[in-house]
Amino acid sequence: MDFDILKNLVKPSDTKILLLVMDGLGGLPTDAQDFTELEYAKTPNLDKLAKEGICGLHDPVAPGITPGSGPAHLSIFGYDPLRYQVGRGVLSALGINFDLKDGDVASRGNFCTVDSEGKVTDRRAGRIPTEKCAELCDKLKDIKLSDAEFFIQPVKEYRFLTVFRGEGLFGELADTDPQKTGRLPLPPRALKPDAEKTAKVVAEFIEKAKEKLKGESPANMVLMRGFSRRPDWPLFPEVFGLKAAAVAAYPMYKGVAKLVGMEVLGTGESLDDEIATLKKHWNDYDFFYFHVKKIDSAGEDGNYDLKVKLIEELDEKLPEILKLNPDVVVVTGDHSTPAYISNHGWHPVPTLVWSKYCRRDRVAEFGERACMNGGLGPMFPATNIMPIALANGLRIDKFGA
Amino acid sequence: MDFDILKNLVKPSDTKILLLVMDGLGGLPTDAQDFTELEYAKTPNLDKLAKEGICGLHDPVAPGITPGSGPAHLSIFGYDPLRYQVGRGVLSALGINFDLKDGDVASRGNFCTVDSEGKVTDRRAGRIPTEKCAELCDKLKDIKLSDAEFFIQPVKEYRFLTVFRGEGLFGELADTDPQKTGRLPLPPRALKPDAEKTAKVVAEFIEKAKEKLKGESPANMVLMRGFSRRPDWPLFPEVFGLKAAAVAAYPMYKGVAKLVGMEVLGTGESLDDEIATLKKHWNDYDFFYFHVKKIDSAGEDGNYDLKVKLIEELDEKLPEILKLNPDVVVVTGDHSTPAYISNHGWHPVPTLVWSKYCRRDRVAEFGERACMNGGLGPMFPATNIMPIALANGLRIDKFGA
Repeated sequence: MDFDILKNLVKPSDTKILLLVMDGLGGLPTDAQDFTELEYAKTPNLDKLAKEGICGLHDPVAPGITPGSGPAHLSIFGYDPLRYQVGRGVLSALGINFDLKDGDVASRGNFCTVDSEGKVTDRRAGRIPTEKCAELCDKLKDIKLSDAEFFIQPVKEYRFLTVFRGEGLFGELADTDPQKTGRLPLPPRALKPDAEKTAKVVAEFIEKAKEKLKGESPANMVLMRGFSRRPDWPLFPEVFGLKAAAVAAYPMYKGVAKLVGMEVLGTGESLDDEIATLKKHWNDYDFFYFHVKKIDSAGEDGNYDLKVKLIEELDEKLPEILKLNPDVVVVTGDHSTPAYISNHGWHPVPTLVWSKYCRRDRVAEFGERACMNGGLGPMFPATNIMPIALANGLRIDKFGA
Repeated sequence: MDFDILKNLVKPSDTKILLLVMDGLGGLPTDAQDFTELEYAKTPNLDKLAKEGICGLHDPVAPGITPGSGPAHLSIFGYDPLRYQVGRGVLSALGINFDLKDGDVASRGNFCTVDSEGKVTDRRAGRIPTEKCAELCDKLKDIKLSDAEFFIQPVKEYRFLTVFRGEGLFGELADTDPQKTGRLPLPPRALKPDAEKTAKVVAEFIEKAKEKLKGESPANMVLMRGFSRRPDWPLFPEVFGLKAAAVAAYPMYKGVAKLVGMEVLGTGESLDDEIATLKKHWNDYDFFYFHVKKIDSAGEDGNYDLKVKLIEELDEKLPEILKLNPDVVVVTGDHSTPAYISNHGWHPVPTLVWSKYCRRDRVAEFGERACMNGGLGPMFPATNIMPIALANGLRIDKFGA
């Protein structure tokens, strides 16, 4: 729904909305058994919410499209990810809490390995550990560029962030990653004339980085991706009229939350830490985005049993969260990560919305096939979630007389 | 669907389509029992239609959005209510059956209270009763303006309708309501140069009204909102190729029907009156919009039992209506009005489409949860109803070769 229209309909209320995102929740049956991870998991508490609530499966981006974590989150936050596109550079900056200024150009770099001819032999430099990455960033951080300030910070494993600051820099630059081994890194190429200066600035950085990394092993070169400036988007608290906080432990998710204007609460990584954080701040906000990461990682690793176990763990802790008495609870994932494919999938994502005022359907358990017959439909746009959550929190005025 | 495309596909036929709108039909279970009003009601005749037809729930405006009656009706008439927005002034005029001419500018006024400095102290003048409003309108109705004719009529409580008639008047004027107390009313400001004359005309009215209301208490000033002219929309009979009549007893619904170009038949208020009107004109039209109001009023009053009873009454009369042998019957509501919330709701609305040619689904009763698994889907856009009704009346040509 158009933000301008929605913004005018949103009204204040003292209801509290909890958006619980189980990352990578959606799954698939395996060859061994006809249950998805969520269907197989024993989840009495989620089943109870599903029974009392209204269910369905959301489609994160568009039918058949497998989303990255950024677009998938934007979508459940109500932002059409096809319209609101953000570069990986900006996402990385937000993710590690880098204080990005207006006009800064951020980029997500990889340390990689090149051979004596300069051809890439490993795009991830053998997935060097984060400590090594930090050491290398330290080595590069004193590089001086003729036309811009320059910052570099480690992100995770072989990934680092670079930020270029100066007059007239733009993000419209092609990636230098050739995407395949056996090829030379690409030169930083401007995608619009305005970005020519930026291309030169980046080329100078790459040249100097290459020089400094000579002799390192396995990480002796950089690949630069996702050049981007911070976008000027409508902010979540203003569009939805919510004082909004994010409980998320991982940089990427903090980043997206910050990008749309949520306050990111400091929290530990474990589920218990996150619940403690939620409790501590419960009275201070209207809306909580609560992110649970590890379910996705288990899916990515193709570990069906671990994914089941982590879903069950979340279910066990659910009553503790519900004791806070949220008025509206949404439980969903940002996308599917079926262990069967060890990867993000395009498959719609189980979703339940619970409130005193939802119209409950006949779904009595939280699982993919049960949700297909739910009142939200088997493939509804993820961007519907926020308006529906607001409605259930009695936070939207009537449209028209 | 785009009206221009549809218009070119529509073909004549002698089939008759009946659109039966049970106002506020959709409901919710209560704390006492797990049935909505429609689910609880004994409706053997509706159930038979549902069993022989295809069912679903329509979404009037957009997910999570609670519609007013105007937008909700536009939507089931096939007009996207986000695109076809009509000013409050025009709706008020239509609602009280004021005969609005092309070029008239209508506005919804409030009587309000101002202090000795002219600052608003109560935007609704203590919600004066309608009788008082009528008395005050009477006092203002002899105001003469230099450049336009002027009409005023009471609407309800502190609300009144003004209509300005003359050459070159436009609705693009900002509201004079400052929205908060403690502020001066705003001057009527033109939002486009063409409307400067209208701004002057309205300013003159306000000045003279202020003079006449001096000494009144609590209503000693006016605030003017929703300036608008009757919109120039594609007309229902032309878009859908239907000679269309409305059987509706209440002003608001006659108003919307008239707005889209239906002929409004004179009728009494009771269901029997309406059925008699339908019978009388059955041979004269292709399409009948048949509106049943009181189900909504029971919902608004939070009267679950009465809403159930009124649904049952409609069901009892249904065979009499069906004896007319319509080729296509659509039964739905314009929006939900669950007694549980004593208000319009955002919840999708039960819908059944019956014809010899519909593809029946497995739904065997007319109720919210039964409809969720119907062939029309649990949340389809209400604007789909008209094309589907036309198709079932064999009134749409093949698209493409």
